[in-house]
Amino acid sequence: MQDNPKNSKTKLTELGEFKLIDHLTTNFNITQASTKLSIGDDAAVVRHQDNTLISTDLLVEGVHFDLAYMPLKHLGYKAVIVNLSDIYAMNAEATQITVSIACSNRFTVEALEEIYAGIQKACEIYNVDLVGGDTTSSVKGLQISVTAIGVAEEENIVKRSGAKPNELLVVSGDLGAAYMGLQVLKRENEVFKVNPNNQPDLSPYAYIIERQLKPEARKDIPELLEKLEVKPTSMIDISDGLSSEILHLCNSSKVGVKLFEEKIPLDPMVISSCEEFELDSTTIALSGGEDYELLFTIKQDDFPKIKANPNLSVIGHMTSEDVGKHIITRAEQQIPLVARGWSSIPEQE
Amino acid sequence: MQDNPKNSKTKLTELGEFKLIDHLTTNFNITQASTKLSIGDDAAVVRHQDNTLISTDLLVEGVHFDLAYMPLKHLGYKAVIVNLSDIYAMNAEATQITVSIACSNRFTVEALEEIYAGIQKACEIYNVDLVGGDTTSSVKGLQISVTAIGVAEEENIVKRSGAKPNELLVVSGDLGAAYMGLQVLKRENEVFKVNPNNQPDLSPYAYIIERQLKPEARKDIPELLEKLEVKPTSMIDISDGLSSEILHLCNSSKVGVKLFEEKIPLDPMVISSCEEFELDSTTIALSGGEDYELLFTIKQDDFPKIKANPNLSVIGHMTSEDVGKHIITRAEQQIPLVARGWSSIPEQE
Repeated sequence: MQDNPKNSKTKLTELGEFKLIDHLTTNFNITQASTKLSIGDDAAVVRHQDNTLISTDLLVEGVHFDLAYMPLKHLGYKAVIVNLSDIYAMNAEATQITVSIACSNRFTVEALEEIYAGIQKACEIYNVDLVGGDTTSSVKGLQISVTAIGVAEEENIVKRSGAKPNELLVVSGDLGAAYMGLQVLKRENEVFKVNPNNQPDLSPYAYIIERQLKPEARKDIPELLEKLEVKPTSMIDISDGLSSEILHLCNSSKVGVKLFEEKIPLDPMVISSCEEFELDSTTIALSGGEDYELLFTIKQDDFPKIKANPNLSVIGHMTSEDVGKHIITRAEQQIPLVARGWSSIPEQE
Repeated sequence: MQDNPKNSKTKLTELGEFKLIDHLTTNFNITQASTKLSIGDDAAVVRHQDNTLISTDLLVEGVHFDLAYMPLKHLGYKAVIVNLSDIYAMNAEATQITVSIACSNRFTVEALEEIYAGIQKACEIYNVDLVGGDTTSSVKGLQISVTAIGVAEEENIVKRSGAKPNELLVVSGDLGAAYMGLQVLKRENEVFKVNPNNQPDLSPYAYIIERQLKPEARKDIPELLEKLEVKPTSMIDISDGLSSEILHLCNSSKVGVKLFEEKIPLDPMVISSCEEFELDSTTIALSGGEDYELLFTIKQDDFPKIKANPNLSVIGHMTSEDVGKHIITRAEQQIPLVARGWSSIPEQE
């Protein structure tokens, strides 16, 4: 590779599969004491004194991401974040990941280096070790599979199934921004196709674009809750959309819910971009998805401990199962909560 | 779905993602005591007293399998086997798997049921629990990502790096059959394209076709070695081909090797099909690949314990690194071992 003139690209076939993985992972450090054996053998070895958590996700080009507006480095970063979020949603600490990438021959070694640079950045920031993985060919497009490994003491693990009636429903951060960021990126991409010389000024949309392209996982929330001495009774990652995940929590815990529209946390940029795109901000917050935030329930007694925290919003409370699952609108209408968006037809009809 | 007339197919969109996973995994049982939480939360929870092993693989339609001759149930089975083999290659016990599947809308619910039937069969036979996974859309084709979890005591784990000069090189089973099975299937597929009414008699090729379509992982080998009181000094799964994996073992252990061509175990059907296809059986055994067998090294003192075992063949011995890596042919020529096939050019030229 040293002989390549600058700016030339290296075909994947110029390195074999094994040399490629060595090459891509050469700068990764091992920092976790629980990592006993990393990349380079048939399997990785980790040693946890407590429970081990495992979560896996498969991201597919054209379905989960579009390389027209997703830089490769951000893609690598986001692929890790998506999985870490699932570990944090169990109130656990993420410790290791494995990454498998399949890509067609349109990708070069330099393209994979970009993806791995993003993976490495995420590993450093979130303090997880890359311990395994492979690269392989695909017939078409890029697929990334990440498995995240975590650790937690038995008594600290929070499942989806522990919510009880009268408990408070809490969400971290704010909602709808990742979806609105995607709308801006799609629109600019259409403009770019018509006039490639057009240099869009995306700075007014910085926050929502960053939420789409470089989301963060809420590693801080389990840490914060421990500091506040609050143990959630149930918890879930809401990247598939607030409404569907509230329903999951309700179904797993066999409870109902009252969600208050006015309590849903929205960034001002989400509100203004929804106006610009003529979209309903509540609908976007409920079902836009890709907000890597945590949704959890706490006992009413714990409310004083969290109420002043700007990272956390109480958005409703749980009820007995027979009361049903509803959103209470700003107009004080009670409407059934549905998985995708929310039905505007009142319950009695 | 109950209303569907028989033989009609169900589109994936008729069930949502979450109902689909519930539907596909409803018949799976949890049998491992170490499985604390299975499918249905953000992450699975396992509890191992010892070291946890993790291995992951991504199988891509058109690269790793061709649905023209791979039945979906076998594909599900094989996707599990491929990963379990990596756990056994660490001298460990496989305990759990997670499975992520991406597929295009040409696949029906019934097609996924077939894949999951194969996954379930493998879980039952190999005594592993399915603890996580998801299904998602792909733009084109089918991708399956499996992560296998295993457990082993620290002192039992066998890495690639422990081989020493003068130790014996041992392989389980016989080699080259999976590749020859694929050649037969490809040939019959070509015949079928020309004349779809042609019913080929594949029974003379039963063994090699089964090695391709329904391979088994060598769960029995770590168990056998324990019974024989033999601890391998190094071990590797050879599904990528005998020659490349011998080189991996040598490189990880910093040793050389002498491999004896005449000692490589071949099934008579591999020899006869190689003659039929005019292929060199040694080349096929060395680099055909997809033989889910284990390659390992043992101390010379352990030879009496394994020599009578029909599952194990001593195929060579390790040397100091400076002696190099060679195959000794039947004609007693010494030829450098290379990753793909083997060079027929003597070393001095």
